[in-house]
Amino acid sequence: MSQKSKVLIVGCGAVGTMCAFTVQKSGTATVTAILRSNFDAVNAQGFYIDSIDHGTISNWKPHSIVRNIEDAVQHGPFDFVLVAMKNLPDVYSIPDIIRPVVTPIVTSIVLVQNGIAIEQPFLDAFPKNTLLSGVAMIGCELNGRDVLHNDPDILYIAPFLNPQLPEADQHDACRKFAGMYESGGAKCPVVEDIVWSRWRKLVWNASFNTVCALTNLDSGRVQDAGCVDTLIRPAMAEIVAIAKAANYTLPPDILDQMVAFTPKEVYAKPSMQVDAIRGRPMEIEVILGNPLRTAEELGVEAPTLSILYKLLKARQWAFRNLQG
Amino acid sequence: MSQKSKVLIVGCGAVGTMCAFTVQKSGTATVTAILRSNFDAVNAQGFYIDSIDHGTISNWKPHSIVRNIEDAVQHGPFDFVLVAMKNLPDVYSIPDIIRPVVTPIVTSIVLVQNGIAIEQPFLDAFPKNTLLSGVAMIGCELNGRDVLHNDPDILYIAPFLNPQLPEADQHDACRKFAGMYESGGAKCPVVEDIVWSRWRKLVWNASFNTVCALTNLDSGRVQDAGCVDTLIRPAMAEIVAIAKAANYTLPPDILDQMVAFTPKEVYAKPSMQVDAIRGRPMEIEVILGNPLRTAEELGVEAPTLSILYKLLKARQWAFRNLQG
Repeated sequence: MSQKSKVLIVGCGAVGTMCAFTVQKSGTATVTAILRSNFDAVNAQGFYIDSIDHGTISNWKPHSIVRNIEDAVQHGPFDFVLVAMKNLPDVYSIPDIIRPVVTPIVTSIVLVQNGIAIEQPFLDAFPKNTLLSGVAMIGCELNGRDVLHNDPDILYIAPFLNPQLPEADQHDACRKFAGMYESGGAKCPVVEDIVWSRWRKLVWNASFNTVCALTNLDSGRVQDAGCVDTLIRPAMAEIVAIAKAANYTLPPDILDQMVAFTPKEVYAKPSMQVDAIRGRPMEIEVILGNPLRTAEELGVEAPTLSILYKLLKARQWAFRNLQG
Repeated sequence: MSQKSKVLIVGCGAVGTMCAFTVQKSGTATVTAILRSNFDAVNAQGFYIDSIDHGTISNWKPHSIVRNIEDAVQHGPFDFVLVAMKNLPDVYSIPDIIRPVVTPIVTSIVLVQNGIAIEQPFLDAFPKNTLLSGVAMIGCELNGRDVLHNDPDILYIAPFLNPQLPEADQHDACRKFAGMYESGGAKCPVVEDIVWSRWRKLVWNASFNTVCALTNLDSGRVQDAGCVDTLIRPAMAEIVAIAKAANYTLPPDILDQMVAFTPKEVYAKPSMQVDAIRGRPMEIEVILGNPLRTAEELGVEAPTLSILYKLLKARQWAFRNLQG
């Protein structure tokens, strides 16, 4: 019987908590999770999870919970540090945050985050570590210690190759993580090209997510308001054009797919809209800023994305400068 | 001594109330004003006006106040029907509203309203009436029966020529109105080309007003947030380009003028932002829709205005469909 992997979850929002649950359920890992606002509630009663993949689970706890990175160190060294924090490079540096828990050679860093062009800062900061890049297709929300997981968990994953390490080792680490995740009862396909998967998900995030945030309409009502034709499809088409210029060709019917994938009847608020309502920082840079920088480098016009970006930046400025 | 003119004010917001005051102060007219939500308060105590042009006036009342168009009829026939309603052709037809108080030949209609391309529906509806088109440069606000008038009143005016009437008569009517307005203590220059003045004012309204509404930042803070360079100047430049294509050439430094005219230190909410906060219909069509239709006819690109328009339409959709 092989030794269990040690896994640390950094960023236990809804997605991070479901990752923690799945990894722990595999029986092949010991899981440490860093909790912040809900530490006391979870410490006392555990999570209550209502999951489309796993059923209903009361009083669930990770093997260890800690309050911060420093307290996590004692539970290492970690084989996997899974990062599911909100991706806000304009607010904080995640490489700086996780540095104390990343052991050279030993630790594989697993990104479960939105956006495009998010990997390079980790390769730069951790030249001796394997980096796995993951794109989560999952629907879930967290309130206190309650998780509602209502759309199945599929985590697309691949090594984002570190030229300074043997390639085979990086693929091994990826297969090991994916095997663990799948044996925990979720899907974790290892893909050929994870950057393509990131562009694909970005088609939705750069359009529905941003327009919902600016109009304060959920993903159903934003369609009733006529925004699919006026704003969402034009924004999607610009992402497709930028991706193509960057040599990532998305399927010809990707716009239709993404609209079809978003039922009009479901009044769901995407993450950026929730952030906008709560006055919290939004993932503007990884969802719009990075693709727009790519567009500029490659000479692709992206007027819709550009204006959405500038408006969201102004909203975010207000959150930071006019509150409290 | 010549007979006093009969003037009806339709739309007694802040601007309409100040127009009523100025016309009445001239001593050359009897003024009827249609009041809605503040009828009882004004009937009991009059307006309280704190004016940069006229000083402080308590308990001021128009000669007659009425609750609606039908009740106004008895005070006519009117020489001038001054329309200062919010300009919402997508919500109501102002020609239909004022029809009962417009007497053919006798009545000159005076528009004191925002936007571009707003005159033709009145010429179409009232082929036997003079139409005066006015652009108000004024800063004022109304709360209940209290008017704060903090930026001097300059009303640019000209006849919007009705080809079915003698031109001289239309100029006479314009001079008569302007003389009355000036003798009431405000400025009322008769201009050569009122459409040029409309485009000029639109440079501000299509940029500051719309961006403030979408970001919920006032005209000072929107500058602190960096929007002048990212959104406001690009929007202004598009208006200038559309105007030029339509043969209205604005001054080369118009963008600088408009930014300089908007002090950073004054945290003033433009009308569209106030409407957005209150969930009321915004003047989207006359401020963005009409210039965008002109842009399309003339083949001028206006990506910034177009996206601001689509986002504001979505916000407005929400006001109409998700309230009460």
